[in-house]
This record gives sequence, C-alpha cells and structure tokens, in this order.
Amino acid sequence: MEHDRRRFLQALGVTGATVMAGCADEPAGDAPSLLGRGISPYGERSPFEQAARRLPDTTTLEEASSRTPLQDLDGMITPSSLHFERHHAGVPRIDPAQHELLIHGLVERPLVFTVTELRRLPSISRIYFLECSGNSSSMWRPAPQPSVQAGHGLTSCSNWIGVPLSVLLGEVGVRPEGRWFIAEGADACRMSRSIPIEKAWDDALVAYGQNGEALRPEQGYPIRLLLPGWEGNTSVKWLRRIKVVDQPVMARDETSKYTDLMPDGRARQFTFLMEPKSLITRPSAGRMLTAPGFHEISGIAWSGSGIIARVEVSVDGGATWTDATLQEPVLPKAHTRFTLPWRWDGSERVIASRCTDGTGHVQPTREALVAARGLNSNYHCHAIQAWRITADGRVVDAVA
Amino acid sequence: MEHDRRRFLQALGVTGATVMAGCADEPAGDAPSLLGRGISPYGERSPFEQAARRLPDTTTLEEASSRTPLQDLDGMITPSSLHFERHHAGVPRIDPAQHELLIHGLVERPLVFTVTELRRLPSISRIYFLECSGNSSSMWRPAPQPSVQAGHGLTSCSNWIGVPLSVLLGEVGVRPEGRWFIAEGADACRMSRSIPIEKAWDDALVAYGQNGEALRPEQGYPIRLLLPGWEGNTSVKWLRRIKVVDQPVMARDETSKYTDLMPDGRARQFTFLMEPKSLITRPSAGRMLTAPGFHEISGIAWSGSGIIARVEVSVDGGATWTDATLQEPVLPKAHTRFTLPWRWDGSERVIASRCTDGTGHVQPTREALVAARGLNSNYHCHAIQAWRITADGRVVDAVA
Repeated sequence: MEHDRRRFLQALGVTGATVMAGCADEPAGDAPSLLGRGISPYGERSPFEQAARRLPDTTTLEEASSRTPLQDLDGMITPSSLHFERHHAGVPRIDPAQHELLIHGLVERPLVFTVTELRRLPSISRIYFLECSGNSSSMWRPAPQPSVQAGHGLTSCSNWIGVPLSVLLGEVGVRPEGRWFIAEGADACRMSRSIPIEKAWDDALVAYGQNGEALRPEQGYPIRLLLPGWEGNTSVKWLRRIKVVDQPVMARDETSKYTDLMPDGRARQFTFLMEPKSLITRPSAGRMLTAPGFHEISGIAWSGSGIIARVEVSVDGGATWTDATLQEPVLPKAHTRFTLPWRWDGSERVIASRCTDGTGHVQPTREALVAARGLNSNYHCHAIQAWRITADGRVVDAVA
Repeated sequence: MEHDRRRFLQALGVTGATVMAGCADEPAGDAPSLLGRGISPYGERSPFEQAARRLPDTTTLEEASSRTPLQDLDGMITPSSLHFERHHAGVPRIDPAQHELLIHGLVERPLVFTVTELRRLPSISRIYFLECSGNSSSMWRPAPQPSVQAGHGLTSCSNWIGVPLSVLLGEVGVRPEGRWFIAEGADACRMSRSIPIEKAWDDALVAYGQNGEALRPEQGYPIRLLLPGWEGNTSVKWLRRIKVVDQPVMARDETSKYTDLMPDGRARQFTFLMEPKSLITRPSAGRMLTAPGFHEISGIAWSGSGIIARVEVSVDGGATWTDATLQEPVLPKAHTRFTLPWRWDGSERVIASRCTDGTGHVQPTREALVAARGLNSNYHCHAIQAWRITADGRVVDAVA
C-alpha cells in the first residue's frame, strides 16, 4: 500500500515539506504495547504541553500581571489555569467559610451574605470575555511585541456562574438617591471601583463559578464582581463589600489609574465599555511558517457592546479584506473564534483582522484611534493589529 | 448600621437559619492585610476546593473509569481536570512529535498526517457533550446511588477543536464501496469501533483541542475522534488509524460490549445516538437541605439529536411539572444548564426533571423505558431520574 502524502500536500499548495513514502498498513507513530497509567481524581495536562502565562521580567506584587498565551490556544474558552492575571496586592488566601459580602450604604436593609447563602440563590450561567483595559497598551507607543501574548494577552473568556447583583440589590432595597455603588475587594489594598447602579440592574453578577468549578484564587475566590463587557478592573475580585452611594468616590484605582489622558491634558474617566477588537492568534509573532502553502488563519474577536457580527481579514496590509468564518457559538460579550483558509505564496505579507460588532461599530485603524485620542493614554487601545510575515516565514509585529 | 439578615432570609422563606446582627461598617469575613502570593505561569485551584473524579473502589486498568462530580459543578463547561474517564488499557504516554494518523482502506490515496499537519488544516470549534453509553446503568437494576456523580457522572461537556473528518476524507478520496470506517486508538488494546461513513460527512472531528488548550492525556492526547451526540466509546481516543471499509468489522468493543441485550435475547448493536436526558445536580443525593425555604434547583440536560427545547421539573414525584429556565447558550449536542427557583416547605418531596429535545423526543419514565427494552441492558439508560428529600433534609436516590 502506498502512503502518498505528496498529492495531499500538493493539493494544499505545500511544496517544501518532506514526503514520506511507506508500504505498511500501520502508521509509524507511537504505538504503546503496554498498559498506560490509571485513572486520576483531578487530571493534569500532558508533560509535552508547556503553554504558560507570560510573566514580566520584573514586577512588584502591587503591579503584578500575567498574560494568556493566546498563540497556544484554540476555540473560545480560556483554560482557567491560563486566564490572565492582574493583581494590586497579590492573591489573598481566603477561607470561603470565613468570607462574607456586605451590602450597605443608601439601602433600606443592609445585609450580609455568606458564600453558602449566595450559592442557594437564583443563579445565572453565561460565557463572557474579560479584558484588562490596559491590554495592547504597547500599541500607543508604539512598541513592537515579541508575541500576541506579550502584546495582547490581557484578555480571556470563561463560563461564569453566579447570582445576579440585581437579586441582591432587590433584597437590600436601593434608595432613590443611590445612583452608584462602590465595589471593594478583600485583597490587602482593598481595590475599589465606583460603578453606576444601572449596571447592577442590567447584567452584573456576583460570580462564584468559572468554567464549571469554583473561581480560581487569582480570579477572586470565593466571589468576585463580574461586569460583562466592561474593563476588567471593574470586575472586583475577592468581593467583600458593595456600598450604594450617590456619586463616585474617586477611589485610588479610578484616579491614579484607569483613566485616559487626552491630547488637551484632560482625562477621560469611567471609560468602562470595552470596544470591538480582534486579534489574529495563528500565525502570530514569534512563530514560523515553515513552508508556503496552506495555513489556516485563526483568531478571536469580542465586543463589550454585544455580539461580533463580522470579522474581515486582510493578507495584503489592509488593501483588501475577506470575511472570515465565525465559529459557533457567537455569543454577546464573549470571545468569538474566527477562521479563514489561506494559501501563503511565500512573499512578504502583512496580515490583519478587523471586526464589526452588532451595533455596527467597526474596529478602527491605529491612525484613526490616535487621531481621536492622542498618544497619552495607556488604556482602551482596540485598534486593528497586524503581523508581518517575512519571505523566510518569520512572523513579527507589524506595528511601526 | 444594622446588618439585618433576618428580613432577607424571611423573604426567602428561610426560617431556621442563624441570624447575625451587627453594627459595623465592615463585613466580618476574611480581610487580609498583607500582600498575597504573586502571579503564576499555570494556575491551580484553591486548596479549599476538593471536588474530584470519583474512582471505583476496585478497578482494573482494562475496565477503568472515573466520574465527573456533577454535584460540585455549575454552568455548562466541565473543567478538563474533572472530565470523566473511561479507559480500556490505561492512559498511554504519547509524544505528539512521534504520533501519526493513517487513513487508508477503500480510498484513492492513503495518507499519513502528523499532528503538526493536522493543526495547519481548516478547523472547527464547537461545544459538545460526551457521555458514556454506560452512564446511569445502575438504573437498569435498579440500584440506588449515593450521589449524582456515582450514578450519572459519565457525562461531561467541553469546547472541542479540531479538523473536520470530512476534510481528511476529501483528501484521501473515499471509494464508492466505502460505507463504514474503523477508528483505532493507540492505547495498548488498540480500542476500535466501526462507524458509518455518513457521520464523517456530517460533524465528526479529529480533535486536538479541549477547552482552549491541547486535549488532556486521558481524553486522547494528542488527537481523538469526536463524534458529536454519539456514545462516548465511539469517539476513539489516541486516534492512530482510520480504515475505510464496506461493512462493520465487529471489533471486540462493539461485540463484547456496547450492545444492548433485549428481552427476547437478541442484541441491539450500533446504538450510537445518545437520547435526550436530564439530571438535577443540586440538590442531589448525599447533600443536606439545612433548612426549609428557598433553594434553587439546578441541573443539566442534553440530547444527541440537537438542542434541548424544554426542561420541566417536578417537586411532587411527577404529579405536576413546571418549566425550568434554560441558561444561555442553548447549543446542539451540548449540556444545557437549567434552573428553577423553589421554596422547600420542609415536607418529604421527590424531585425530578424531564427534558424534551428539538425533535420533540421526551425523556421517558424508567417504566416506559423498561417496557420497551427490558432489564438485560447495561447501556443507554436515559430515563427520568429522581431524588427523594426527606423531612429532615437528607437527599437520597429515589430509584426503587
């Protein structure tokens, strides 16, 4: 029997790959003949898999973050072990039996909830992305990045489960003058943000579940706020207190950080919404295309305003665009995986993706975004992002 | 400030819970004042979380299985570390660089694919359940089970990513007489199943991704067959060979097992489709309701035929039924999470769920299923399953 890989590879336009010819009725691969290991209570990944959150070279606990290895991932769900991190005082060790959530302030009946009580209440399960508003900040400089992870890895997507904040606020009874609430974490710095009360009536959750199991410690165990589609910092982790107030409190983390300095010296504040954005994750910087021919282009797109309606891909530096396939399910405020078949001709190419959300908002070019917001900002860069593929197959950041 | 939990708990009908009154502006819970631990490359769960796959008291490697702790999980995605296992020769350790997939038999061009080649090809990302057809087999006896995990934990749901088998078969060119294919695993027993070729043209995948990252070893790393909606055993793990044939080969695992002995002594064979099924996972056997009052009822439903259209819940042993809420997204051939608010009055209750899929197929009672199929079977029990809540709050299996 002939094992003819040549015709297959030719059909895909691959011309430089090794072709093996064989005459066996068996594949040449690993073929264990001994019993393998047994079952296990809590599984681990293969020792051949080494994808890891990228840690900065230098960091302090107060400014710590790690980034999701988007170039190594497929599909729409981020493994909890690889969800990006951003901590302002490290990851506290919290005994859920000792943890409580206080809701007070401008309410009729201040209440304290244990975690067990929260888990008895009506629950919601949804798939949502979470993105740090500082993601892609290197595009403001701009500074070319060695990988999609390094430049854009502060976004992840999970199945979140929890009790609607509206249920809890319904129980405490918000007074008419209660227009905002302050969410405070139980980390040592008591990370706090001021949130308009409308978000609570809309889709805010007090989440205790992530991808089926309990929240991971670095994601706020045992409970966190989850504000779908809003900048990640507002989804306060290790949530211990919600105080209903009449105006924002101008907490440290919404004044010293998480504001956007405009060209005229004034700052945009409370820029909660994460705008439509997309990334090509494969191929992406740091990888090689070993030969011309077929290579699937794959990436993720998301919008804080709802669903992704369209993703276009350019393989000629933005001159022309082709619609990518959106992988199902396409969900509001969730990563949507897109794919496009592509045959690389071996010439230098700049590839990029551009998404449009359900409101018609189109991801802008970097030039358009800079024209509107200047270059003083650290946050909310959702510009079109591009990779350069050199003629020898290397993939590098195309940002100037 | 008064921390009045009494009115909240009363509003929920909870009458026996301890009420704490306090006058502080702070919750009483954990409040670390020291920096926590830093970021990490690959996260782990909290040491306070101990959910584990249930291992049988005695097992051999050849008959090994473990079960998903459904009573501990929320939402629709099963963490990969807790996906049920069923192995026939243990978990082989396979180096992906050494693994190949051979496709041959009644084809025009036999081909061998490396894992790297498969990952370059057009991909599909979908969320699908996987259920062992031996799940819930104790309901055939019937034998009351100590937990939903013990009785029904051979079902899980993941985001699977891979190349459509139709793409690969298109490349090899199936001959007109090729009506079935044999899928063979690389485990030491070369677990094999015969599959009608139509499934390949429909939605079969050669999967390499699970919940974002690479397949876990116990799920077939580096590649597995994935036949959405079909009995789990057919989704052959550690896939190494697909041979196109003209008829089933009557492999060991489709004759000695995975057939359904009927009352007349004949066996149903090739019963691939997993029929509509639902389970209440909370409350469920082994748990306690500590007090009357509000308790959310939550569970999962799925069907190999497509979407779940409806889940009804009874809290009076099947006399009356109420529609549960289906949590979004509701996806074809995936677990759908359902929830129903419920106020337990403290009396003995039998609670059960009944689902209907998009084809109109309604989950049957055990009596109806036994009337049709007898009591000789080990497989394909999708009967309505019920829990008894005793007056002291214990939850036990209601099967006779």
